Amino acid sequence: MRERLLAAEKVKAIDWRNGVLHLLDQRLLPFEERWCVCESAAAVAEAIRGMLVRGAPAIGISAAYGLVLGARARLAAGGDWQAALEADFQVLADSRPTAVNLFWALNRMRERLQRLKVGDDPLAVLEAEAVAIHDSDREANLTMAQLGVDLIRQHQGNPQPLLTHCNTGALATGGFGTALGVIRAAYLEGLVERVYADETRPWLQGARLTAWELALEGIPVSLNADAAAAHLMKTKGITWVIVGADRITANGDVANKIGTYQLAVNAMHHGVRFMVVAPSSTIDMALESGDDIVIEERDGRELLELAGQRVAADVAAVNPVFDITPADLIDFIVTEKGVVERPDAAKMAQLMCRKRLH
Amino acid sequence: MRERLLAAEKVKAIDWRNGVLHLLDQRLLPFEERWCVCESAAAVAEAIRGMLVRGAPAIGISAAYGLVLGARARLAAGGDWQAALEADFQVLADSRPTAVNLFWALNRMRERLQRLKVGDDPLAVLEAEAVAIHDSDREANLTMAQLGVDLIRQHQGNPQPLLTHCNTGALATGGFGTALGVIRAAYLEGLVERVYADETRPWLQGARLTAWELALEGIPVSLNADAAAAHLMKTKGITWVIVGADRITANGDVANKIGTYQLAVNAMHHGVRFMVVAPSSTIDMALESGDDIVIEERDGRELLELAGQRVAADVAAVNPVFDITPADLIDFIVTEKGVVERPDAAKMAQLMCRKRLH
Repeated sequence: MRERLLAAEKVKAIDWRNGVLHLLDQRLLPFEERWCVCESAAAVAEAIRGMLVRGAPAIGISAAYGLVLGARARLAAGGDWQAALEADFQVLADSRPTAVNLFWALNRMRERLQRLKVGDDPLAVLEAEAVAIHDSDREANLTMAQLGVDLIRQHQGNPQPLLTHCNTGALATGGFGTALGVIRAAYLEGLVERVYADETRPWLQGARLTAWELALEGIPVSLNADAAAAHLMKTKGITWVIVGADRITANGDVANKIGTYQLAVNAMHHGVRFMVVAPSSTIDMALESGDDIVIEERDGRELLELAGQRVAADVAAVNPVFDITPADLIDFIVTEKGVVERPDAAKMAQLMCRKRLH
Repeated sequence: MRERLLAAEKVKAIDWRNGVLHLLDQRLLPFEERWCVCESAAAVAEAIRGMLVRGAPAIGISAAYGLVLGARARLAAGGDWQAALEADFQVLADSRPTAVNLFWALNRMRERLQRLKVGDDPLAVLEAEAVAIHDSDREANLTMAQLGVDLIRQHQGNPQPLLTHCNTGALATGGFGTALGVIRAAYLEGLVERVYADETRPWLQGARLTAWELALEGIPVSLNADAAAAHLMKTKGITWVIVGADRITANGDVANKIGTYQLAVNAMHHGVRFMVVAPSSTIDMALESGDDIVIEERDGRELLELAGQRVAADVAAVNPVFDITPADLIDFIVTEKGVVERPDAAKMAQLMCRKRLH
């Protein structure tokens, strides 16, 4: 599985090269493959805020590299560079509010910073830590892909119609993907008949990114309006809804792209299994439940305009970009530490005590 | 109520004037108010097929006028004009498959034709019948608005947040609207805090048409992504989902714009009341259940492109434009003949025996 996934890898969206962060501009895909070169923490924060890079794990990885860029500038400026670096921590932490992987990655960088010894090269240490975060996300994806495929195979041995929402592929992560990583691995194992991809308004991550990633690998994919999902569950025999997560709370509630919640309600109604795939860095044990998560509301223009063109009447728009799926609508949370079936607080705590499987 | 609705009327989309059918081109709204003049049955059929006019009742009314245009041309051509008119019946019936109002209106025109007496002016008779269909749809809307408002008031006497899907207003009907007629009347009665309007992909009838109609009358409206509806039910205290219908079967199953079904599932999950508003011409007693309705699938380009611009990767799209909401997810079906609570076959049969209330 691991080797086949590595061999099938076609997309890389985060590239740390020659001490500079190269990000594939996801706003322009699939029409244009333009790389953005970030040379400062502020540039990385702006790329995250502007959704040039999106997807919870990808945001975390980018922020870690952003901090390396910040440290280099602060070191060059001399003086109390660690105190000055606080501003970079802040600007990166403020770039998006929902994905906890962002704060997790920044905390991991801060902890590494605190363990610096006399004689260490701070920049080399921080760069190695960011690369380790990136590498371990790739490894986590490979592990989750295997675990997710095992779950599908336990329930069905033949090709299945699956449904997914938003983009959780190589573009959203350090490589391979979370939910889309499971789907790609399941396809390699002969367990996918077709992937139904929600277009995912307002940013159309499904239409632009998921469809593009799946088509690149020759995986049968049909795009559908988000509102068609229940009808497809009923008429196409869909057996699994597989999605990612931006934050998972201590009780197993999941914050993910707007629309995930109503998919989960509909999956329950139709007896379709609901799988959430996310690295353990997405789990925020400091929050008791989804009620504690502040949902990001973005500019209504994201709904009212498309590619700068007005598509709606002159009214207000309410644009929450995430929602909360309560744990009791979720069949499985798949992480690199293992699988939680029918999540609750006790099972989530148990999971977090485990070491990584890989 | 009736007088206040009449006084508040601002939009008229179907105008039979000087023996020609004027249709407000709904594809261009709200950006341009362009009228299309149809002078033949074929032109009306093309307007329906191309969604220049849409909404189940509006389609039925337009088809009736289309038949008048057909009859005039056939009469002018001489010979067996009634036999020749069959081709016009056919081209109009073939224009859209789901809205039964289309077939209902054509049947009503055919029946009137069969009752022609010697000495009748066929054209005058057919024109009067089409005008009667149009007038009675307007009257039906006024009656349904009153019945719907009574239902809301029975449950809540203070302003409520409501949610609607697609466009069911003056643009979709002979005037006032079905679901939107109820909402407009409820607003006049002080029972509406805010209307949440699903944008309704892929044609964005909610973003373009519903938002436009509500804003014209100063009714507080917020546009939202279709996939945000469940999140809004949970977080905004929405008490009613109010939608229209394209066809209702003998057991109370409802075919309506894609997305209605998953709204109904979510309404049930959240304890939100679900009201369907449609004239009795929408009820097809010849079909036992929603399983008997063939769902129209339109060109995938409606999802892949927007205003001629590509918005998705190069993949296939599945584009069912209606879905079936089973009767057991519906709290009320409101027609001009009265209200059916928790619809089933017996109650629907009883309703259809009634005369109109107005």
